[in-house]
Amino acid sequence: MAPAGEKRGILERLEAGEVVIGDGGFVFALEKRGYVKAGPWTPEAAAEHPEAVRQLHREFLRAGANVMQTFTFYASDDKLVNRGHAQRFTGQQINEAACDLAREVANEGDALVAGGVSQTPSYLSCKSQDDVKAIFKKQMDVFVNKNVDFLIAEYFEHVEEAEWAVQVLKTSGKPVAASLCIGPEGDLNGVSPGDCAVKLVKAGAHIVGINCHFDPETCVNTVKMMKAGVEKAGLKAHYMCQPLAFHTPDCNRQGFIDLPEFPFGLEPRILTRWDMHKYAREAYKAGIRYIGGCCGFEPYHVRALAEELAPERGFLPAGSEKHGSWGSGLEMHTKPWVRARARRDYWENLKPASGRPCCPSMAKPDGWGITKGHADLMQQKEATSQEQLKALFDKANKGQ
Amino acid sequence: MAPAGEKRGILERLEAGEVVIGDGGFVFALEKRGYVKAGPWTPEAAAEHPEAVRQLHREFLRAGANVMQTFTFYASDDKLVNRGHAQRFTGQQINEAACDLAREVANEGDALVAGGVSQTPSYLSCKSQDDVKAIFKKQMDVFVNKNVDFLIAEYFEHVEEAEWAVQVLKTSGKPVAASLCIGPEGDLNGVSPGDCAVKLVKAGAHIVGINCHFDPETCVNTVKMMKAGVEKAGLKAHYMCQPLAFHTPDCNRQGFIDLPEFPFGLEPRILTRWDMHKYAREAYKAGIRYIGGCCGFEPYHVRALAEELAPERGFLPAGSEKHGSWGSGLEMHTKPWVRARARRDYWENLKPASGRPCCPSMAKPDGWGITKGHADLMQQKEATSQEQLKALFDKANKGQ
Amino acid sequence: MAPAGEKRGILERLEAGEVVIGDGGFVFALEKRGYVKAGPWTPEAAAEHPEAVRQLHREFLRAGANVMQTFTFYASDDKLVNRGHAQRFTGQQINEAACDLAREVANEGDALVAGGVSQTPSYLSCKSQDDVKAIFKKQMDVFVNKNVDFLIAEYFEHVEEAEWAVQVLKTSGKPVAASLCIGPEGDLNGVSPGDCAVKLVKAGAHIVGINCHFDPETCVNTVKMMKAGVEKAGLKAHYMCQPLAFHTPDCNRQGFIDLPEFPFGLEPRILTRWDMHKYAREAYKAGIRYIGGCCGFEPYHVRALAEELAPERGFLPAGSEKHGSWGSGLEMHTKPWVRARARRDYWENLKPASGRPCCPSMAKPDGWGITKGHADLMQQKEATSQEQLKALFDKANKGQ
Amino acid sequence: MAPAGEKRGILERLEAGEVVIGDGGFVFALEKRGYVKAGPWTPEAAAEHPEAVRQLHREFLRAGANVMQTFTFYASDDKLVNRGHAQRFTGQQINEAACDLAREVANEGDALVAGGVSQTPSYLSCKSQDDVKAIFKKQMDVFVNKNVDFLIAEYFEHVEEAEWAVQVLKTSGKPVAASLCIGPEGDLNGVSPGDCAVKLVKAGAHIVGINCHFDPETCVNTVKMMKAGVEKAGLKAHYMCQPLAFHTPDCNRQGFIDLPEFPFGLEPRILTRWDMHKYAREAYKAGIRYIGGCCGFEPYHVRALAEELAPERGFLPAGSEKHGSWGSGLEMHTKPWVRARARRDYWENLKPASGRPCCPSMAKPDGWGITKGHADLMQQKEATSQEQLKALFDKANKGQ
Repeated sequence: MAPAGEKRGILERLEAGEVVIGDGGFVFALEKRGYVKAGPWTPEAAAEHPEAVRQLHREFLRAGANVMQTFTFYASDDKLVNRGHAQRFTGQQINEAACDLAREVANEGDALVAGGVSQTPSYLSCKSQDDVKAIFKKQMDVFVNKNVDFLIAEYFEHVEEAEWAVQVLKTSGKPVAASLCIGPEGDLNGVSPGDCAVKLVKAGAHIVGINCHFDPETCVNTVKMMKAGVEKAGLKAHYMCQPLAFHTPDCNRQGFIDLPEFPFGLEPRILTRWDMHKYAREAYKAGIRYIGGCCGFEPYHVRALAEELAPERGFLPAGSEKHGSWGSGLEMHTKPWVRARARRDYWENLKPASGRPCCPSMAKPDGWGITKGHADLMQQKEATSQEQLKALFDKANKGQ
Repeated sequence: MAPAGEKRGILERLEAGEVVIGDGGFVFALEKRGYVKAGPWTPEAAAEHPEAVRQLHREFLRAGANVMQTFTFYASDDKLVNRGHAQRFTGQQINEAACDLAREVANEGDALVAGGVSQTPSYLSCKSQDDVKAIFKKQMDVFVNKNVDFLIAEYFEHVEEAEWAVQVLKTSGKPVAASLCIGPEGDLNGVSPGDCAVKLVKAGAHIVGINCHFDPETCVNTVKMMKAGVEKAGLKAHYMCQPLAFHTPDCNRQGFIDLPEFPFGLEPRILTRWDMHKYAREAYKAGIRYIGGCCGFEPYHVRALAEELAPERGFLPAGSEKHGSWGSGLEMHTKPWVRARARRDYWENLKPASGRPCCPSMAKPDGWGITKGHADLMQQKEATSQEQLKALFDKANKGQ
Repeated sequence: MAPAGEKRGILERLEAGEVVIGDGGFVFALEKRGYVKAGPWTPEAAAEHPEAVRQLHREFLRAGANVMQTFTFYASDDKLVNRGHAQRFTGQQINEAACDLAREVANEGDALVAGGVSQTPSYLSCKSQDDVKAIFKKQMDVFVNKNVDFLIAEYFEHVEEAEWAVQVLKTSGKPVAASLCIGPEGDLNGVSPGDCAVKLVKAGAHIVGINCHFDPETCVNTVKMMKAGVEKAGLKAHYMCQPLAFHTPDCNRQGFIDLPEFPFGLEPRILTRWDMHKYAREAYKAGIRYIGGCCGFEPYHVRALAEELAPERGFLPAGSEKHGSWGSGLEMHTKPWVRARARRDYWENLKPASGRPCCPSMAKPDGWGITKGHADLMQQKEATSQEQLKALFDKANKGQ
Repeated sequence: MAPAGEKRGILERLEAGEVVIGDGGFVFALEKRGYVKAGPWTPEAAAEHPEAVRQLHREFLRAGANVMQTFTFYASDDKLVNRGHAQRFTGQQINEAACDLAREVANEGDALVAGGVSQTPSYLSCKSQDDVKAIFKKQMDVFVNKNVDFLIAEYFEHVEEAEWAVQVLKTSGKPVAASLCIGPEGDLNGVSPGDCAVKLVKAGAHIVGINCHFDPETCVNTVKMMKAGVEKAGLKAHYMCQPLAFHTPDCNRQGFIDLPEFPFGLEPRILTRWDMHKYAREAYKAGIRYIGGCCGFEPYHVRALAEELAPERGFLPAGSEKHGSWGSGLEMHTKPWVRARARRDYWENLKPASGRPCCPSMAKPDGWGITKGHADLMQQKEATSQEQLKALFDKANKGQ
């Protein structure tokens, strides 16, 4: 294995047209494993339970990931304080521990380390641009000190805040990626995906795209809109996509956060590995080359991306040692009728049942009538485009 | 933490009326993590990737499990050979490694180590009782040598083979549990659950019950039938239940193996943590005290069992440090309408949508018409009670 | 067309092994057409709007029905009074008008007239056997006076009341059929279908069976249980089946009355004509020869029965002039891809979507938790077998 | 009852802001009753079985309809020949009989007679404008001769043909309505709803709108687009809407014709009466005043429109004699828990189950992959906007 310093960088790979497989989301995966608390969603486990974080990095690496994102989501100081985290560890300790774990595992294979910042409570509470940028700078200083390979500003709902983040990260001299958690309707201020992408590229991002909040199909479509915007503006960029591993055809602009199942009843929406094959192929066809995942992705989901794109990449991931392509491992199953499922067309065409005959297939995004008496809460929601959201809901809901 | 030798044993706990929380299934969890191959389902990872197996043990321990089952499923020599395993490690090495990992983690908390044997290819290919028993004895010798705390014969579809296993395991002098993977229709020879339980108790099992193949509701109902049989026979036993974490209302006698979604499209069937609360309560009410899980269980599922039964046990598991009871952690969420979900009745009454509007809620068990041209395969299925199975299918299927 | 007097009688036909096609239910069909009020469900339209009742008779005749049941459901005097009917017409006038209409249309084809009585408020309010029998006698006197061809006691939930009805109807000297609205769990006093049938045959019924309350599959299965009971008792009878045209896999003992969709939201449950083909075939295979329908049946449903059994009967119904067998009429459709549906296997295998992505596929029968605060109402429900019902509900409901 | 000549005309009513309730579709209703053949869909029953057609007119009148459309759908000579109709009656005889039946029943209440023409095979086979107009003129001559109250050009998929029809009908001097069977994507040549409406108004139509092919929500939305187009062009018109009584959230541009359930498996999609209340209210709020129905509408559906708009109209329809508002008739039901459903909020919030646990909630429009081997047929489909249709399908279908 080549020492980290000798690996080809993220831009080098993308400019050569290579596929870069991203990793999956840590907060959801570690919540299921018992190391992250839903609600605060903070990453103190990097310092508290490094063995759990290291193991998840290893599984994603083994699944084929070329990027180890530092587990620093919501690890800005203002967030840690805001969430009432007991502060057994300082923000700096958490960020440093996360860098060390990512680097340790990246060195075990062909992966780069990406330091990540995400949206801040400071922005949402209308702090000044300088205050918000100072927050990003503090995390970035750790990343630079720990010599990560590149930087990602991700999970932004407002493109303005993402621009500020990019402007800060640019000062590091490292490659910068910028990823919003928006859908085709644009950011929460109504800026379209195309315009968002142009702003991010102009702010200095080398790679732009989408992560979280929506399912793969929606995210790929939104990145397409970003790409169209960038090209129309006569600019150039690379594109990334790191969607949910949950089906969300019934979301409104807020994404899966608004679904009544968020975050503790999302199980029936989890994508199969075969859904992931479709996603990888569609993303590739759309010209996206940095293809990974976010909340809901387990190692086998990432492995499916790497398997689908094995012809393009020229190799299978290490984890495929334990996975027959398109179900071929079932040839060894005890029962003959299960052995008969060891073929691609079986899995490609399967429409999996939920085993839940009293449950619907689509949900109403919250705030459109499901929970009466929450009118006060709804007031606090963005009022932008209420008509449009209502129409979407009515569409989804007309079967009732 | 007390040294292993000083822990109270499994029978001591059950006789005192305590709840014993089991762990979850390893093969499915490790398949998703990239360390087990679906089809062969063999546990060579215990030797090959001990860090992955150790981490999963730790997560179950942290979730509240009182039992660390050795990761020795399908680790009998005949199975390893039968599945064409490359044999980088001998069966003995795998079994020993599994014991060491279970013991290492058990020592980190209040858990016992259980050595497990399961059904063998030898029995299915009609080898003699002596041959089959020799297979069990070989695994048992490792367990005795490694000084596990008790033994489990689990995942048997034919009660006769389970009796043989119990007879062998009894010779160790350790407590013995016996668990079948059958539903209310009985074993594959048509022996009823009640009769199965009587046979196992007579063979010497201290604890009897059900694991795998069906969802919690079906498994609890089947254990109830076992209990009724044992009591009617004037015998005594303790009861255990380790079901799937998948909804299976549409199964026939073969359980989830027959569902068209097995094993790569089961995602929409995964139980939520709230479904697990119901299971734990129902199992407890049925008089079952050894309550755990099998395929599909992730650490958060086990934690839900421990949380539901916290009033009976008197404490929460370590992992609840990262989990608010009934969603209360959401009080810290950014969005106000998500904070409004931080309450029990919200999650108890939620009917989660699948986000899959083109998929049905129930599937046809394979062999009842879904895959034409498999008539030859179906010949090899048990013909017992074809009429009855057909009726069940027709019931499930009448909506078409 | 032969005069009525020369037609072969109901027993003559059944004893010759012929198929007798029944008509469909009038109250639901006429409720949709605007002539019956849901709730009271009384048949005053026979006198008030004879053109509407006559037309429906004609449509069933044209669809292949061999029996015109008089539209006298709930036309006993005690019921008409009980329902607060305005009494523009006396009970006698309604019953007479219904007989005249049935006879008028029966004479237009090969159909017999059957006078029908059904369960009475007098029985439910614990009137004496004599009082209840007097009610039946009053209706019967009209039927005898109008010279109907045979008599049917139908829609009884308690076999005891049905026996009384049969005993009265027997005194007419005409053939008597007796039909209960029960499922496999038996009547509301817990008498099994087999025992019910034996009682009815002993009371003098020539034809026994099931009508209303459950879907075709359930009804056919219940008639099978009746047949087995009669044969085991060494008795002989003919068998009839007149089920709902609604899918009801989620019913409890009370049948579709308990479903939350009853009676104004049942649309998604309506059977297709292809479902009717299956029903007709299953009923025939079960040895049932009087095959008709009840609530929900429209003329095209009856026509489907007659088309499925055309090989056995030797002819198609008149209405098939406007219906190509198994969709063959679509060969004339404008759009080519609709023409491609003009074949049996297309319609036999279609799984029709509901177009209602926010609706579940199964409902909870009322009283099992759906409507809180109705505990007082539930008290009035039969408490028999609560455990059993609860279990059924839990089964249906476990997906939540 | 006032003689026809003294009734207020359609434009007089609409200009006064009154609600005009339309009738329901005849071909689907009479197909279920056995008088129309699916595939050809021709209206020879007007001459062959006048009693059946008259009865349906009466039921719609009783349900509150103010318009009796002549049953002349697909009764142009070229269509009757094209469909191979046996021609027991000439086209002229059928058209005349239809006029007489509509007038007879209209005279029984406050209804007008509307003579209707619809799209022709001549247009689809590229006959000249003169030839196509001659077809319309022939039908119109009958309508003028029979002195209908106004004329409707309905069920056009190409606005150009509808313009020609309007130009012909205008020569009668009678009010003219024009109604397309298109959705928000516009006509089959891609002309938007707004542009279509402008063309029709310019051609001389007094009333413009939508009928058939889509569910009420889609149709109301499409009429809104028409209204916006007309107003933007500085023109004036009245608006009508006569949608399906089937839920069609999963349609593409061809409407329900493309759904795999068309025409023999649409039952689970049938709207309830409560769905109709929502439709009537939405249509009214959108400024539509001529509100009726098309395929799938039964008399009780029309009655629900009239009941919802009773406050605006000032009276209930005759048929409400047999219908308690919002289920209030259930107060007379035998079972107490059914009596508890006699209230508006129960029915307004009910999510009706389909009773079909093996069926999905959404279907794939045909031609997008469901029936392999039909590639040749698909070639004949309009290729316009394939990308767009595919995207819609993919959206609907992503759950697989």
